[in-house]
Order: sequence, then C-alpha cells, then structure tokens
Amino acid sequence: MTDKPFAKGLVEIFTGSGKGKTSTALGMVLRALGHGLRVHIIFFMKGNYPYGERNMLPQLANVSFQSFGHEQFVDPQNVKAEEREQAGEALQAARAAIASGKFDLVVLDEVNVAVAWKLIEVEDLLKLIEEKPQNVELILTGRYADQRLIERADLVTEMVEVKHPYQKGIKARKGIEY
Amino acid sequence: MTDKPFAKGLVEIFTGSGKGKTSTALGMVLRALGHGLRVHIIFFMKGNYPYGERNMLPQLANVSFQSFGHEQFVDPQNVKAEEREQAGEALQAARAAIASGKFDLVVLDEVNVAVAWKLIEVEDLLKLIEEKPQNVELILTGRYADQRLIERADLVTEMVEVKHPYQKGIKARKGIEY
Repeated sequence: MTDKPFAKGLVEIFTGSGKGKTSTALGMVLRALGHGLRVHIIFFMKGNYPYGERNMLPQLANVSFQSFGHEQFVDPQNVKAEEREQAGEALQAARAAIASGKFDLVVLDEVNVAVAWKLIEVEDLLKLIEEKPQNVELILTGRYADQRLIERADLVTEMVEVKHPYQKGIKARKGIEY
Repeated sequence: MTDKPFAKGLVEIFTGSGKGKTSTALGMVLRALGHGLRVHIIFFMKGNYPYGERNMLPQLANVSFQSFGHEQFVDPQNVKAEEREQAGEALQAARAAIASGKFDLVVLDEVNVAVAWKLIEVEDLLKLIEEKPQNVELILTGRYADQRLIERADLVTEMVEVKHPYQKGIKARKGIEY
C-alpha cells in the first residue's frame, strides 16, 4: 500500500549541538512508514551499542538499517585508519542503498560528524547527493554540518542547546538519550 | 520486559520555528518503546487529520494517544470558546495520563502553542508539572515555549530554521512533513 507522497525527494539536514537530531530522523522514519514509504538507515557512528531504536526497528515493516563504526567514540584528534575505512564502507553502503531503487527515504545518521572529522570527504558526499535518483529523500544528521552541504540542502534545521541536564551533572539515560 | 532506565523523569522542551519538534518526540517515543517503556501522547493541536504517525502508532505496543482540537488551524487572533474547551480537555487528559501510573513517558505535543495562544493557562501547565510523579518523563513540543516553562524544564532545544523549502515555494509533503 504505497502512498507515495512526493515526486522530488529533498535533502534535509539536522545539525547543531542540541538534542533531537537522530530523534527527528527516527520520527520522520515513523511518519514515512505510516504512509507506506520504504526506508533505509545508515548509522555512521553508532557502533554496536544496543540503542533503543535498534530494538524497535527490526519490529517495523519496510525499514532496514546498517551500522558502521566502533562502540568507542572516535577521537577526532587521532583518527585511526580503520575508522576511516569503516566510514568509507558506510558511504559505499549509502550509495548502494540510494541507487537500489528500493527506498524512498534514506537516513545517513551522524554523517555530518564523519565529514567534520575527516573520516569521509565532503566531496564524496556531495557527489552522492548529485547522483541520487530524484525521487529519493535524503536526511543527513549530526553536528558540524559542512557549509557546502548546507548550501546544497533544501531544508536545514539547527538544534540549539538552550538548556541541558548535562549542565546539571545528569548523565545520559538509557531509553531517553540512547 | 520493562527495562526502566531512569529513576527521575525530566521535563524536556522542543521549541523554535524549525522542523523537528514533533519528529523528535516521535523518535524519542520509538527509542523509549525499544527499552520497554510505556508511552502516552496527547496531541493538543492536530485535529483529526490522518497524519503518518497516526497510521503507525496503533501498530506499536505500549503506546497510546489521544487527539484534541480541530482539523482547521486555530486563528490566534480569534480563538473560539470551543477551541479553549478542547485544549482544556487535552490538559485534563494529560493530567489523568500522568497521574495514572501507567506511563513512563508522556508527550504533550504542541502544548507550547496552546499556551502561547491562550487556549490554556501557563500556570495550569506549570501546576501539572509540579504535581507529576517523579518517575514520569514529560516532553513538551511546539513553537513559542513560555519563558516560565523554559525555566522549569531540565532540557530545552530550540529548532532553528536555517533553510526551509517553503522559502522556495515547495509545499508541505505527505509522508515527510506530516
């Protein structure tokens, strides 16, 4: 029961230091599934940690995902060759998903960070965007969105941290932040 | 299989004019469900329009929702008594859900707008927050978050519109924006 709502897929970016970037993408995935769209998510930086969304996504129809990167956080001052390699594989998987014709919406989660930390080249991501079929909607999330990506995107929201419990010493909580 | 991740529920606000407020709440709902939390959503301003999320939410376990308001947009310069009444009912439903002990996470979608347009009193919402059981997490979404709510909240993200396709004349698209 596909209920294809758009002829031209846009490029949307959710960036900034505030909470809500990956959550927005997940909410948009839920909404898209409700309209019968087919969705694929590439997690660029999430490693294998059992995030709440990983428990839920396999229970939903018409959405698939692939994860890349390690459980540990990448140290941007000391990026390892292996980390670059994994990010490159993620980008390759993104290209394949977008070109496959199987998906209406493709989410590249934390791809902005992968660019900012030089795990992948912004030129390669711009090329992926240029080459995408017109009907595929693309969502890019993560802090530090490159200015060239912002210029290319159709929609950009910056999540600004007005107030955060980390400021009060409250740690990230399972089920809420991840 | 409840996997209760927090002892103290916070109050989180997603506001601003940029895209991603309701989507963030929905993404957080998905994540919370993945951890076995029980969720209730009150839509303050969505009327009965068949949004994508309405198709999906009934398919998920452990999440329920109630909708209030009309299909038409409220005119803030000319609020009708009936619209105030509906918003009052939504607030009463929120109070009941929060006090019921049945939910770990309660989302009050577009409640900030209901306050800004004087459909409900900010004092009544502050009272609801004060009276909520400690273990209930509360998410408030919508533009124009009242400064007193921001002061009370533990986490506030402002979605800033950096770039929006409306600026280019592209209309809201089913499956993506609603």
